Amino acid sequence: MSEWKRLARFDGPIVIIGFGSIGQGILPLILRHIDAPRDAITIIAPDDSDRAIADAEGIRFLQTALTRDNVRSVLEPILAGTPGFIVNMSVNVSSLDLIRLAQGWGALYIDTCIEPWEGGYTDTSKSASQRSNYSMREEALAVQAQFPGGKTAVMAHGANPGLVSHFVKRALLTVAADTGVDTPVPTDRSGWAALAETLGIKGIHIAERDTQTTARPKVRGEFWNTWSIDGFVGEGMQPAELGWGTHEKGLPEDGFRHDFGCDAAIYLGRPGASTRVRTWTPMEGPFHGFLITHNEAISIADFLTVRENGAVRYRPTVHYAYHPCDAAVLSLHELAGKEWAEQPVYRLLNGELTEGRDELGVLLYGHAKNAYWYGSHLSVQEARDLAPYQNATGLQVTAAVLGGMVWAINNPDVGLIEADELPHEDILAVAGPYLGPVVGEYTDWTPLDGREKLFPEDVDHQDPWQFRNVRVR
Amino acid sequence: MSEWKRLARFDGPIVIIGFGSIGQGILPLILRHIDAPRDAITIIAPDDSDRAIADAEGIRFLQTALTRDNVRSVLEPILAGTPGFIVNMSVNVSSLDLIRLAQGWGALYIDTCIEPWEGGYTDTSKSASQRSNYSMREEALAVQAQFPGGKTAVMAHGANPGLVSHFVKRALLTVAADTGVDTPVPTDRSGWAALAETLGIKGIHIAERDTQTTARPKVRGEFWNTWSIDGFVGEGMQPAELGWGTHEKGLPEDGFRHDFGCDAAIYLGRPGASTRVRTWTPMEGPFHGFLITHNEAISIADFLTVRENGAVRYRPTVHYAYHPCDAAVLSLHELAGKEWAEQPVYRLLNGELTEGRDELGVLLYGHAKNAYWYGSHLSVQEARDLAPYQNATGLQVTAAVLGGMVWAINNPDVGLIEADELPHEDILAVAGPYLGPVVGEYTDWTPLDGREKLFPEDVDHQDPWQFRNVRVR
Ligand SMILES: NC(=O)c1ccc[n+]([C@@H]2O[C@H](COP(=O)([O-])OP(=O)(O)OC[C@H]3O[C@@H](n4cnc5c(N)ncnc54)[C@H](O)[C@@H]3O)[C@@H](O)[C@H]2O)c1
Ligand SMILES: NC(=O)c1ccc[n+]([C@@H]2O[C@H](COP(=O)([O-])OP(=O)(O)OC[C@H]3O[C@@H](n4cnc5c(N)ncnc54)[C@H](O)[C@@H]3O)[C@@H](O)[C@H]2O)c1
Repeated sequence: MSEWKRLARFDGPIVIIGFGSIGQGILPLILRHIDAPRDAITIIAPDDSDRAIADAEGIRFLQTALTRDNVRSVLEPILAGTPGFIVNMSVNVSSLDLIRLAQGWGALYIDTCIEPWEGGYTDTSKSASQRSNYSMREEALAVQAQFPGGKTAVMAHGANPGLVSHFVKRALLTVAADTGVDTPVPTDRSGWAALAETLGIKGIHIAERDTQTTARPKVRGEFWNTWSIDGFVGEGMQPAELGWGTHEKGLPEDGFRHDFGCDAAIYLGRPGASTRVRTWTPMEGPFHGFLITHNEAISIADFLTVRENGAVRYRPTVHYAYHPCDAAVLSLHELAGKEWAEQPVYRLLNGELTEGRDELGVLLYGHAKNAYWYGSHLSVQEARDLAPYQNATGLQVTAAVLGGMVWAINNPDVGLIEADELPHEDILAVAGPYLGPVVGEYTDWTPLDGREKLFPEDVDHQDPWQFRNVRVR
Repeated sequence: MSEWKRLARFDGPIVIIGFGSIGQGILPLILRHIDAPRDAITIIAPDDSDRAIADAEGIRFLQTALTRDNVRSVLEPILAGTPGFIVNMSVNVSSLDLIRLAQGWGALYIDTCIEPWEGGYTDTSKSASQRSNYSMREEALAVQAQFPGGKTAVMAHGANPGLVSHFVKRALLTVAADTGVDTPVPTDRSGWAALAETLGIKGIHIAERDTQTTARPKVRGEFWNTWSIDGFVGEGMQPAELGWGTHEKGLPEDGFRHDFGCDAAIYLGRPGASTRVRTWTPMEGPFHGFLITHNEAISIADFLTVRENGAVRYRPTVHYAYHPCDAAVLSLHELAGKEWAEQPVYRLLNGELTEGRDELGVLLYGHAKNAYWYGSHLSVQEARDLAPYQNATGLQVTAAVLGGMVWAINNPDVGLIEADELPHEDILAVAGPYLGPVVGEYTDWTPLDGREKLFPEDVDHQDPWQFRNVRVR
């Protein structure tokens, strides 16, 4: 029963908001590794379809949808007394409103995505720039500035965004060691950025190939995925976004800079769900992924920026290159074919998954050894052996949430913090045991491999790693 | 046993070349409906994996791969004596070489695709224009001119190319009747072209949605399809091609005209397998299909061209918009991701199909009632009830082959002939009983429906039916 290692102790109320694939997955990890009274935990979600899991674990379940109007009144009775912990695993609830409330109540906070209130991703009263993750991150940075030294709020700390920022640091150190660059482990942002520049990293793909599959094929009119379909469709409809590196020779013809904020990223005037890019992972080899916007594409690019006299001297290109499970690829194809009119049925795949892995890592490219992928090869079987109620995709997320929670409890007064600013080895020490095989592999692959066999293409032969070469047309 | 209606009698040797999905499917239809001595039939194919079917039917099987060098010597002993019938259901064997031999031996001929010798589709010693179906059709027309009044050779007469040319004629007459255009049934090319012009048909999609599915999902590293994978990959690697209508305001930026031949079609400088278009069918509604090059896109556009003093006054845009079965969509995605390095395993789906239909028809658009789809809704169950050894896709093809064979036997001296020149009702009288529900439906859908909800797009709002609007970017 209690042979699990307790990693932190927390006596205040813990509120888990949202009880979907991630909420259900984090619960057993909290129960295992955080020494907290069971009756101090509350789950809040609008649908009680999976309430049986909460009941089985003896955890209180409050069936409510949080809204702009009720969020304070619902949470206040639970959180306003003793300093607690908001574990936001929901969709459609504003992360920033929750963070502001948490600061007021002296509560710790963690989420895995900076979420807007419902409809925020597709609110066309806003410009594409305003609907971007860049914009949401800038808002978060503004809130961060309001609460220096406030209660710790770990922002966007799942697998990606989250874990992958820590993978990047390990990968930078490995590439340094393997290319003869002598470096101490950097201790701050400027140190990491300088290392990336020294290594000549042109860019980083968050390169993910999910091969998890069910025994039967996707059914027409249904969207199938291994994690939140609301979440995936929401971000898929946002503009494609990428951290924009200094090695890029020119902006894509549909690329735009934002006219506010840190300027680390650009966006394309189109949904990421229809924007394909070339990438590579060790088990899959080359493949086409989707350039779905993600917080880490912006935060990592910003974190690794080197400035000289105020001007940007170095920045890597950073973006997601996501091959969701095959059923989700078909779901996206169907959704695009209906001009983004959503399928009537959503099926979140968990128990019915029969095999496959979530191959999730970072591909650092453009250095002396060309490209290096580092990440997790967790299989669905391994995930099930490690923890209940989740698949490989979910456990990569919840392992990182656990890591973030433990760190927040032990470091409660740093205010709002991004994954890139956290000490990566501390987090990976907690998350690592839940990630299955964590592997690194170099590759000779570039996005020019196998090109132009049958037709001339608009490629840059001088620099294989231009985004122009990565993008699929 | 012999309750089947005999539709024609043929005493000479019948040689079926190729015994894949289509070869196997045509055999029982020949045995049912053509009064021919069983021992006059020979099947030739290089692999004997499905020889058991031939054996069960008591048909001679010659295991040989035809090549440029041996084709004459292998066929001569069988065909040089009595006038016979070459039923070419193979891939990788030159249709035109077979037709020339057939003319020499006084043999009838039919195929479902103008095929080159092996490697012809991807022979990069040729230009994209020379690797096109346009080019192969022009060669065929040149051979046609060499044998006026020769033995009948029905070219490219499967489902599409083939059947769909007959669907177009029926659909034109229906649209005429429903829009108050009084017309006799045209009796020649110029009559049909004039009718299309009068009706204001801007274009025609061969709009196909194959929903056939197996009980299990596609396996990684395998290409799955409901008909020839060699055939599909071959044509998918050819340049995307389309009959180019007179209503189009401008050539696509990657579009090219050919510098020879009838000029009815253009090609894009990219493979059809990565070129998506918007279309519509009654059961699926709107979807994205692939603009795979096909003979009918060119022949129908050419057939319906109206010239005035030598100059083209009217022509519809015509192209394929193909949604293959879901497993094939995933196969294409994987193939593109590997930059067209072919999967090591091909799986042609037949017996393991559990359900689904091949919704195959023609969408005539731009007329007074907007758009009209006419075609077959054959399900795999219906196909199995109708004839052995094939799925819905195959039966739509073999029904048309049967129709073409019967017509050729009854009209043996017309030389080389395309589907568009055949009397459509004669063919449909034979093929119809094998097509399941054949339905027509009008739709208000246009390729502008649902567009620009989230992002501005490069569309022509004045004319919904510009190819620019149809194409997916
Ligand atoms: N960083 C990462 O690696 C990563 C990975 C997966 C998911 N996520 C994020 O985690 C979040 C949850 O993902 P999931 O897969 O569990 O999603 P899910 O769709 O399975 O579950 C979402 C949960 O939120 C609840 N919810 C919806 N509206 C709510 C409201 N108004 N108030 C309270 N709860 C509400 C739903 O009822 C459900 O329980 C999403 O934001 C997603 O983007 C991040
Ligand atoms: N018009 C249409 O609607 C339509 C539809 C489907 C298929 N087709 C065409 O029909 C043809 C056959 O399709 P399929 O699905 O039966 O293909 P398949 O791949 O199932 O079978 C092809 C057959 O050709 C044989 N073959 C290969 N090389 C040969 C050679 N050198 N000599 C003799 N035989 C050889 C193979 O052994 C196999 O028996 C293809 O050209 C395809 O494009 C047309």
